[in-house]
Amino acid sequence: MAQTLSIVVIETDPERAGLMAESLRDAGLNQITVIPETVGLARRIAEINPDIVLIDMTSPSRDMLEELTLASGPLERPVAMFVDRPDSSATKAAIDAGVSAYVVDGLRADRIQPIMDAAIARFNMVARMRTELQTTKRALEERKVIDRAKGLLMKARGIDEDAAYALLRKTAMDQGRKVADVAAALVTAAGLLS
Amino acid sequence: MAQTLSIVVIETDPERAGLMAESLRDAGLNQITVIPETVGLARRIAEINPDIVLIDMTSPSRDMLEELTLASGPLERPVAMFVDRPDSSATKAAIDAGVSAYVVDGLRADRIQPIMDAAIARFNMVARMRTELQTTKRALEERKVIDRAKGLLMKARGIDEDAAYALLRKTAMDQGRKVADVAAALVTAAGLLS
Repeated sequence: MAQTLSIVVIETDPERAGLMAESLRDAGLNQITVIPETVGLARRIAEINPDIVLIDMTSPSRDMLEELTLASGPLERPVAMFVDRPDSSATKAAIDAGVSAYVVDGLRADRIQPIMDAAIARFNMVARMRTELQTTKRALEERKVIDRAKGLLMKARGIDEDAAYALLRKTAMDQGRKVADVAAALVTAAGLLS
Repeated sequence: MAQTLSIVVIETDPERAGLMAESLRDAGLNQITVIPETVGLARRIAEINPDIVLIDMTSPSRDMLEELTLASGPLERPVAMFVDRPDSSATKAAIDAGVSAYVVDGLRADRIQPIMDAAIARFNMVARMRTELQTTKRALEERKVIDRAKGLLMKARGIDEDAAYALLRKTAMDQGRKVADVAAALVTAAGLLS
């Protein structure tokens, strides 16, 4: 897997950029794009859509750090940030924004591979939690809206709960839609009509 | 805040333990307990209940790493693990188990404070997600059980949904319990009686 990773390195200092690229090549990683400037960064990263982004900064300002973090898309892919002289509020901001590895003064050839391993493992762990949270929230919302729609049907047609659900389900099947979508449409319509 | 942190350092090598304790004291941190052995570790850490655990290991076996990680309670408090020669499966295991900072060959006095900042920020971020996930899951489960209980009451008493919910709610209030608990008891009882 490691050999096919595509990597974006964000580094304004040419010397350090060279060091990073060399370390990565030594580790057998060849799909490297070094981006030396931050103008249009978000668009370029989105176009390349790399497996991981490495950001190297000596002592970033809070604004710079925030801009780089957002541009690198830390919710879409692992982002490892190398910082030499961090302050604790910048650290907190980077981690809250979703940076997967926050490395203090750690840019050294033999550390890049294990740091990438850690960033990828962290990203996957947090992404799993995020997916589970979204799925659970959606299930809860769907259940709420289906309940509301059932209640509307029970009142409007004088039918019981089972019959109301059966009606929602039949309508959904007939229209090739999800029960929750039919329920949401019904709740919206009832709101408009009342 | 930093000055009042209570810290447990797990370190079998006395020389490195001394270095870590010294770095922490230099950073104004004085509530340090060094634990040099892993026997009874989970119990000792639970007793001390520190704000953060620092684990230093040169090249841990997978088993050792797993044992230390679990003993340190990474879901209850930030755990920062220092590893000199990590392999990628051990890295993944530590992060999946909840280690908040996984530091590759990074034991150096001036890095300990920012690494602790990062570990605490990471721990808080993941703990927030975990709490939100638990809350959402519980809300979904409660909703399901309340629905089931309402259905049982509607059938058994020939009442409509609103009346069923009102009955659950009144019973809960009379007994000083939560509606979801009354509903769960009802569902269990109905299962036993049927």
